[in-house]
Amino acid sequence: MKNKRIGIIGAGPSGLAQIRAFEALQNQGYAMPEIICFEKQDNWGGMWNYTWRTGVGKYGEPLHGSMYKYLWSNGPKECLEFSDYSFDEHFKKPISSYPPRPVLFDYIQGRIKKSNAREYIRFNTTARWVSFDEDTQKFTVILDDLKIDKTYSEEFDFLVVASGHFSTPNMPYFKGIENFPGTVIHAHDFRGADQFKDLNILLIGSSYSAEDIGVQCYKHGAKSVTLSYRSNPIGIEWPDGIKELPLVTHFEGDKAYFKDGTTEQYDAVIMCTGYKHKFPFLPDELRLKTKNNLYPDNLYKGIFFNDLPQLIYLGMQDQYYTFNMFDTQAWVARDFMMDRLQLPSPAERRIDMDKWLERNDQLQTSHENVDFQTDYIKDLLSMSDYPHFNLDEVARMFKEWLQDKEDDILTYRDKTFRSVVTGTMAKPHHTDWMDELDDTKERYLFEAEEEEMIPEKM
Amino acid sequence: MKNKRIGIIGAGPSGLAQIRAFEALQNQGYAMPEIICFEKQDNWGGMWNYTWRTGVGKYGEPLHGSMYKYLWSNGPKECLEFSDYSFDEHFKKPISSYPPRPVLFDYIQGRIKKSNAREYIRFNTTARWVSFDEDTQKFTVILDDLKIDKTYSEEFDFLVVASGHFSTPNMPYFKGIENFPGTVIHAHDFRGADQFKDLNILLIGSSYSAEDIGVQCYKHGAKSVTLSYRSNPIGIEWPDGIKELPLVTHFEGDKAYFKDGTTEQYDAVIMCTGYKHKFPFLPDELRLKTKNNLYPDNLYKGIFFNDLPQLIYLGMQDQYYTFNMFDTQAWVARDFMMDRLQLPSPAERRIDMDKWLERNDQLQTSHENVDFQTDYIKDLLSMSDYPHFNLDEVARMFKEWLQDKEDDILTYRDKTFRSVVTGTMAKPHHTDWMDELDDTKERYLFEAEEEEMIPEKM
Repeated sequence: MKNKRIGIIGAGPSGLAQIRAFEALQNQGYAMPEIICFEKQDNWGGMWNYTWRTGVGKYGEPLHGSMYKYLWSNGPKECLEFSDYSFDEHFKKPISSYPPRPVLFDYIQGRIKKSNAREYIRFNTTARWVSFDEDTQKFTVILDDLKIDKTYSEEFDFLVVASGHFSTPNMPYFKGIENFPGTVIHAHDFRGADQFKDLNILLIGSSYSAEDIGVQCYKHGAKSVTLSYRSNPIGIEWPDGIKELPLVTHFEGDKAYFKDGTTEQYDAVIMCTGYKHKFPFLPDELRLKTKNNLYPDNLYKGIFFNDLPQLIYLGMQDQYYTFNMFDTQAWVARDFMMDRLQLPSPAERRIDMDKWLERNDQLQTSHENVDFQTDYIKDLLSMSDYPHFNLDEVARMFKEWLQDKEDDILTYRDKTFRSVVTGTMAKPHHTDWMDELDDTKERYLFEAEEEEMIPEKM
Repeated sequence: MKNKRIGIIGAGPSGLAQIRAFEALQNQGYAMPEIICFEKQDNWGGMWNYTWRTGVGKYGEPLHGSMYKYLWSNGPKECLEFSDYSFDEHFKKPISSYPPRPVLFDYIQGRIKKSNAREYIRFNTTARWVSFDEDTQKFTVILDDLKIDKTYSEEFDFLVVASGHFSTPNMPYFKGIENFPGTVIHAHDFRGADQFKDLNILLIGSSYSAEDIGVQCYKHGAKSVTLSYRSNPIGIEWPDGIKELPLVTHFEGDKAYFKDGTTEQYDAVIMCTGYKHKFPFLPDELRLKTKNNLYPDNLYKGIFFNDLPQLIYLGMQDQYYTFNMFDTQAWVARDFMMDRLQLPSPAERRIDMDKWLERNDQLQTSHENVDFQTDYIKDLLSMSDYPHFNLDEVARMFKEWLQDKEDDILTYRDKTFRSVVTGTMAKPHHTDWMDELDDTKERYLFEAEEEEMIPEKM
């Protein structure tokens, strides 16, 4: 096995999970294959590695990061906990269920810093082009070392695509938008609510981005927030200052016209219109072509490219589960690459995919979505030795979270949940989320007693 | 010759000049070689094809366009006039010397619409990767048809890189910028001054972008404009409301600290910190690696890649001359590709380049810069049958323009110049530039008499 070469594209949660999966096996005494992970950014963490930049990065590559200042987890941390590295192990004390981004980034790093992961990763390196040779059954990947402006190639037996799918903005055109006088950006380039203080902002979209950016802007002082939906409103009871309207039909100057005949004036437009799966480095016959959904077609077990299973995609699903789903995928992928798992024939794989796709097509409610992804992960868990965890309880927590959001979008982050990994009950954050304007790790980890002694912040 | 295949990357002014050059020869009775031009955008015009988008385009590719609403030519149109297609021929009447972007775009299109250029161009197509085979002496270019998500390859005997170099932002980090609460963008993503109305804005940079964006924002109602320079200020007499300060050292919240000890509060930061030459589709040994200057090294006659002269770069210089320089380059490149021009040996080419580089190194004043580029174009003109024009007079106009800007940055666009192609004197625009807030072609081309009958605009 030692001479098998494995290429991983991306060192975010999925790529790191893949490295970690191999290391877990190494800890059991197995030899490591040769692994090289290529990361476009200058650090690991993928989406969780915050950048102040927008558009393109330092070296002119399309920017990976879509996160923003004051981003707090929008689901309970107990639903994404690594089953082999608990929050207790990392923080040594109970913390709240909805930590801010820097705290979750710290947790992701905690697990991987214990290992030699960094030595497998080439940072500031982007994959330019991949080809697959039928004769040698090897992938050739052309890489670009952005820092020294040098291109070169590497050969691999397996290629793991872990480059994410929340980085390429889907940004539809609306008539007149080119003459809108204020800021027009995609959620991908939203970096914080401050610049929208005292403004009337229009968010186009009705998914997580719209919901969360809308609430953040409300919290940080926007004058008004309008969410414009294509098919269905989010439909919860919004506080005064946030409302939903049907889809924008067009703009005239700073006025937006909506399907229901409403017209309103805005200072800024943020398009929360989703992301595209994009793999510019792959020939199109190796590209996963899919919309964002819970079961992209052509991926056996959600990871093996059916036409060529040595090509593995991690984390390409729409996500309730995140870190722990990437882990279960990476462990299964590892076992295939290490010859510990045989795949059935392409035809049998097709039958298995079709079964999932059929169920996926019939999903109607968010509870059904949660159950679908729960069952998908159960299936993966049964295939590897990734430490089991109580998935039914996690599914229950997801459903409770959905209800909490519906009950009150402004306070759901003050709720607490119990870890299925350690049994630890989360501790409420020292400050109600709506009153907490500081998202730093330092502020978050202060004990309440200490906090009382801190002088007032500006 | 018919079977020679020529690939052109980019259908902006340079790529279009190349097509036009071949067509000019065809009009003389020569056969056209096989030409395919690949354009990432959905229309031709390159930088002049305005987009409301920022960051990445419709298909997630880094955005080409850096232009903005209310962009007016910042040099006299008489300095960029095609010598084979005059402004008179296009507009049928004298127009002013500083037209707005849509008017110049119309002019660029006018010449090319007379031809069959469009049939050579594949729009929405980006070059992913180029390789060169020493044995066959052919380039293989892997293309990505963005609209249908399909990759394929083409072989060429010559490859013309005309993809521009004002698209990849150079965006340095300043300590604390990640916590600046307001908008932080590069000039590349600036789309108009309206959103900066009543704000205090900081522009980092002292080149054309900073000067022009600063003046535009001033004109359209910014509360104050500060330009921060690294080495030297622009140093002209600014109107009240615009000022220059030395380089920012760091930010704290919304406060910028400057080298001279000044501290000021800002609402927005626009980085006018220039662009990088970037060719992600080329292996690094074929990449032009240069800063933005008047004579990039390793390009014989400023166009032929010295290590492999079948690889041709157009328009890679810093620019006083623009459209007419691209034309003179494209005509020379054409003659080489058509076997009408032989290049000297690599060593002789090296000597020629060194001569120019040496002079380039000694340039000190902007007048010397103008003379340098004038002489460079004279050299090119002597090598092909591109219609000659009075370059000394154009150089004189450039120098007058430089003086006009120094005299009054707010009124220099009201001056007029005489065409060296037709002898026509420009006609002053019906409205002083500072009072003209509408940059549409329709408004621009109205006759003064008509204009008096237009009702007041909002």
